[in-house]
Amino acid sequence: MTDTVISSAKREVVIGFERPFVVIGERINPTGRKILAAEMSSGDFSRVGSDALAQVQAGAHMLDVNAGIPLADEPALLARAVELVQSLTPVPLSIDSSIVDALEAGLAVYQGKALVNSVTGEEERLEAVLPLIKKYGAAVVAISNDETGISEDPDERFEVAKKIVQRAADYGIPHNDVVVDPLVMPIGAINQAGRQVIHIVKRLREELGVNTTCGASNISFGLPNRNGINAAFLTMAIGAGMTSAITNPLHDGVMQACMAADVMMGHDPDCRRWITRYREPSAMGGEGERRRRSSRRGRRV
Amino acid sequence: MTDTVISSAKREVVIGFERPFVVIGERINPTGRKILAAEMSSGDFSRVGSDALAQVQAGAHMLDVNAGIPLADEPALLARAVELVQSLTPVPLSIDSSIVDALEAGLAVYQGKALVNSVTGEEERLEAVLPLIKKYGAAVVAISNDETGISEDPDERFEVAKKIVQRAADYGIPHNDVVVDPLVMPIGAINQAGRQVIHIVKRLREELGVNTTCGASNISFGLPNRNGINAAFLTMAIGAGMTSAITNPLHDGVMQACMAADVMMGHDPDCRRWITRYREPSAMGGEGERRRRSSRRGRRV
Repeated sequence: MTDTVISSAKREVVIGFERPFVVIGERINPTGRKILAAEMSSGDFSRVGSDALAQVQAGAHMLDVNAGIPLADEPALLARAVELVQSLTPVPLSIDSSIVDALEAGLAVYQGKALVNSVTGEEERLEAVLPLIKKYGAAVVAISNDETGISEDPDERFEVAKKIVQRAADYGIPHNDVVVDPLVMPIGAINQAGRQVIHIVKRLREELGVNTTCGASNISFGLPNRNGINAAFLTMAIGAGMTSAITNPLHDGVMQACMAADVMMGHDPDCRRWITRYREPSAMGGEGERRRRSSRRGRRV
Repeated sequence: MTDTVISSAKREVVIGFERPFVVIGERINPTGRKILAAEMSSGDFSRVGSDALAQVQAGAHMLDVNAGIPLADEPALLARAVELVQSLTPVPLSIDSSIVDALEAGLAVYQGKALVNSVTGEEERLEAVLPLIKKYGAAVVAISNDETGISEDPDERFEVAKKIVQRAADYGIPHNDVVVDPLVMPIGAINQAGRQVIHIVKRLREELGVNTTCGASNISFGLPNRNGINAAFLTMAIGAGMTSAITNPLHDGVMQACMAADVMMGHDPDCRRWITRYREPSAMGGEGERRRRSSRRGRRV
């Protein structure tokens, strides 16, 4: 039993072995989104707000917030995005940057216990990020690559994760505040990528006792019908013990796959969430009304 | 590596640990289908034929054929259904009955090596069915219940399966011709049903080295959006090592889940089957044409 508690001022989400799967919405990220990048650079954060609301409406339990725009003042942009999203939604956030100053700017304005995305096994990153995690009492995503890059051997990636967990402990950060991302490769290029994830997630859970996350959409890069592959990946990864993912809750099938996987794992007692979401409309109200009521009810974990 | 070879006169299908998942179409079964039962009783087998063709068109790799109609001459009906389906489609069959004389009548007219569905751990059944399997050189589905009924403890169900495999060996039937059905409970009633299947499938594979099958649709009995639950169940079961299932290939999402799970397991080299099935229509032909061509191409295992 490893519980990673993440919170906002209004809500607590627990990532854990015997908990419902946690979906972290990936949309607030200007990488590859030219319009969003241009708007954020010019100070227009309206799309950040609408993306936040849409993802929570779709069922995201947390949101990732990234403001990585080349040549922009990323610390200022990230802090503003964090403040805006926290003013609009109650869900806890993952503060996402490869720039340490930006992570600190986001943490400084964040209300609650954030998830910081991310630290790698590179010495320079460990020494810069882990003290921040300790200072702000946050949790951290540990990405299993280091100075040598990303190993194709999942057992080498496991060793990098193990090093990060040990180094975090040296800084007084408990293993349950380290959420490991074992790195998901595109299965169109590496046909063993799915089995690699199953293998490493089991080792991370059994040997290190840590929670796990991943950028789930990466698995289907370059393939047609990406939703079908993403849904199968998430279901199988949850079956293997993965406890959260950074993904797109607006994609058809992603939320359904996660909810069905929770049922399969016995993490939806009496299938109550599934039945509430999918039961036929009764004579008392149409399905649309039921869905709106259901989504307003929010999440209890 | 355990390969169970099933064949018709025209085609071989291999159920195996490192093979694509085998979908056995469940539709030709009058249980709970009043119109089909009435037609078959009166000698009208047109729906048997159309159900066979539709399931193969949808991607089924084998078909289950059942003629269980109360008070009817089941051996004659089953033999006729087997002959008809074999005349219409090249896929190998699972000959399905709880009446030993019906199994023998089906086997007597079958061309190829059939899968017989099923034997249980009950002494009377073992002694009646296993000699038939040996006589006709067939493979058999072993259902993990016995005189005491179906245990809720998956480890007790494992012990029943083990007994059947041992008894089959006494009759000269190798373990790779026994495909174990670990029995899937409705998850709406038994919330641990999904994890039970994952647990017992692993034990069956690692300790007995046998292939596995199941009546997959049973998992979602009583729940809304059954397709969503069925897809998650199949995906997770394949991730745990299940190698075939008796299910409805006409249901939305079932074939997609099985194909995506094959990709995830590395059983679709270079994702070729997935890409062929789902790639965007080109300027040279619409998607409908592509699907027809793809389905004519048949299955290579």
